[in-house]
Amino acid sequence: MRSAWIVSIGSELTLGQSVDTNAPWLAAQLAAQGIRCRRQVTVPDELEALSATFREAAAASDLVVATGGLGPTADDLTRQALAAAAGLPLELDAPSLEQIRAFFARRGREMPSANRVQALLPKGARPLPNTCGTAVGICLELAGTPCYALPGVPFEMREMFRREVLPHLPALGDGQVVRFRRLHCFGTSESAIGEALADLMRPGRNPAVGTTAELGVITVRINASADSPAAAEALLDDTERLVRARLGTAVFGRDGETLASVVGALLAARGQTLGTAESCTGGLIAKLLTDVPGSSAYYLGGAVSYANELKEALVGVPGELLTAVGAVSEPVARAMAEGARRAFGSSFALATTGIAGPTGGTPDKPVGLVFLALAGPQQTRVEAARFGSESPRVVIRERAARTALDLLRRELIRQGP
Amino acid sequence: MRSAWIVSIGSELTLGQSVDTNAPWLAAQLAAQGIRCRRQVTVPDELEALSATFREAAAASDLVVATGGLGPTADDLTRQALAAAAGLPLELDAPSLEQIRAFFARRGREMPSANRVQALLPKGARPLPNTCGTAVGICLELAGTPCYALPGVPFEMREMFRREVLPHLPALGDGQVVRFRRLHCFGTSESAIGEALADLMRPGRNPAVGTTAELGVITVRINASADSPAAAEALLDDTERLVRARLGTAVFGRDGETLASVVGALLAARGQTLGTAESCTGGLIAKLLTDVPGSSAYYLGGAVSYANELKEALVGVPGELLTAVGAVSEPVARAMAEGARRAFGSSFALATTGIAGPTGGTPDKPVGLVFLALAGPQQTRVEAARFGSESPRVVIRERAARTALDLLRRELIRQGP
Repeated sequence: MRSAWIVSIGSELTLGQSVDTNAPWLAAQLAAQGIRCRRQVTVPDELEALSATFREAAAASDLVVATGGLGPTADDLTRQALAAAAGLPLELDAPSLEQIRAFFARRGREMPSANRVQALLPKGARPLPNTCGTAVGICLELAGTPCYALPGVPFEMREMFRREVLPHLPALGDGQVVRFRRLHCFGTSESAIGEALADLMRPGRNPAVGTTAELGVITVRINASADSPAAAEALLDDTERLVRARLGTAVFGRDGETLASVVGALLAARGQTLGTAESCTGGLIAKLLTDVPGSSAYYLGGAVSYANELKEALVGVPGELLTAVGAVSEPVARAMAEGARRAFGSSFALATTGIAGPTGGTPDKPVGLVFLALAGPQQTRVEAARFGSESPRVVIRERAARTALDLLRRELIRQGP
Repeated sequence: MRSAWIVSIGSELTLGQSVDTNAPWLAAQLAAQGIRCRRQVTVPDELEALSATFREAAAASDLVVATGGLGPTADDLTRQALAAAAGLPLELDAPSLEQIRAFFARRGREMPSANRVQALLPKGARPLPNTCGTAVGICLELAGTPCYALPGVPFEMREMFRREVLPHLPALGDGQVVRFRRLHCFGTSESAIGEALADLMRPGRNPAVGTTAELGVITVRINASADSPAAAEALLDDTERLVRARLGTAVFGRDGETLASVVGALLAARGQTLGTAESCTGGLIAKLLTDVPGSSAYYLGGAVSYANELKEALVGVPGELLTAVGAVSEPVARAMAEGARRAFGSSFALATTGIAGPTGGTPDKPVGLVFLALAGPQQTRVEAARFGSESPRVVIRERAARTALDLLRRELIRQGP
């Protein structure tokens, strides 16, 4: 398989003031064409570091794609660095200058003189027209390796990549394509999945299988390479079947699906509805549910009963119960879920009450303790979960919300279609 | 100034399946200590590429910080790569194994055998305890350069960096320090701010001033370098004063402050409380408010009245009104805010109703139209905002929630302390 280096240029990146989304976007585009990013390098706006990186990248790979450093200001050095790496002078490209002038003219403005440098190219390089900005791209061969320099502004970069780079990639490839699939799991651990899939995860297997974990969601990544998209998809299908057979209901979704979207689809298919009563998650479950377009078909709404008075007023938790056992307790979680189900007239209601921290914990009820309740047509389930007293507030809340959604998912699966 | 390489490890990164937020976070941390990231490299989960990268990074810089590849599964190769780069065998570290066992025990579980590998270290390396996960970090000298391998999970990485790396950095620096400050603005545009601050933004100025924009929040970034933290902070103070004098109440906060935390502090200082009634933002305002530790002091809770029946049941919007003017309307927004304020007994209540899309728009009420209402002790204000019919659902919701919070912020400022 052919290999590429992706080079991201800019001191705002190496100073940590911006997050680079160009590199992953390009990596995914190249992989889909069967070109694997072997290395991604980020360098500051410094001429020598930049030209050395271009030479190194061209020597080590079959393709170099760089972003950034094509602006009109003094810290934009990609043109000069490419020229230095190739040992070529910079020359003004008249058609590019004309395009930049026309760009300003369409906006009723004269081209500022500063933008003239954006029409400079290493002698003999191919200009890449920019249809939505003034940064002209550059294509140049370095040591026999094609190097593309694209703008750093994401939408200009993507448009130029689609028009000026993508059509030339098949000629570079060796006919191999890569296709990805992700299977998302909940209610298990990365190590348990690692054990169950050990043979599929051995290095060198095609499709390759790996795992990542975030906020309790374990994602199994499957990457297949083959000589056609159809063959790659067939390989993915085979491995997906194997993974699903071993992990069972731990797998909740695929690719862009979330716990909220999957729960929503299950509810919609059954014609059932959901309400929520949230204390420690403070609206996060509602937010995750309503992130999904069309969620109004099954999600009626909810109460964020942060204060005890609202637990009473909105979902009818008896004041005596709150006094007797405290808001963070099994009976209150149960009363919140059952009260919400009654008040909202929904098929199911989810409730959370717990201690998200960083303060408010006691030896009995430490930070990270959350009671999750699900009231349904047949019964109410309550679970106590501990998300770690040392975990940050955001992690406790995000994990609690996902655990609640998974409680409902498993209940819906248990009930059958 | 001393130099560092940051190495990000994982095929999910080089395949473009995840965006790397660890590298920029680390780069900013190092810069604050006067250590400049000269290069950031991302490599796939491949033993040879990894160990070669470690050797190269150690030879080229004064410090190497790597993230990722410390998990319990077969594709986690950072331990082996460091050992190979140093020519050392891996050995089991008994105290680390004990910490991993204890981590599981605190959660009432036995350690799966797969996690045992996370206690393996290159012989003689210093283990970096993980206080919130099982991936033990590693500190090792390669060719005289300290190399730190940290977990890929962001919150584990950050906590380990603060505890185990940061205290050792002053010994590496050369006296130059960089300090950053960010001032966050709302209710204005990036170009208006660019015009107001044009002279401060000229290249070469120290402190340097730049802007970024996200979801309606414009952030003015100020970077100062000096030979002491106190001198850098003094430079930041001067520029901050200039910026605030020109932008006035558009500036809502600094560094880690958010609209929700600033509104919360204003409410707490006045001893006032807040409730919410959300339709199209579906719990997002509540979520943003309760992201803030201690928010229970002023935020009572809210209703996510997604269905019309819940607008009636929870915050008393008359059914006839909903029928007469429709849920997405000025009168319903007003009734939601006033009803919520009454039902919850709060000083203020915020309400939203609108069309988040992608479907449900009409020529009269297009996608992106949101009515925002604020009921307070003196009056109720309602604003109609249009967030763009082509905008994604997530953007419309996030902007609407922030605009609502800013409505309350400006009202609190108007009322005075």
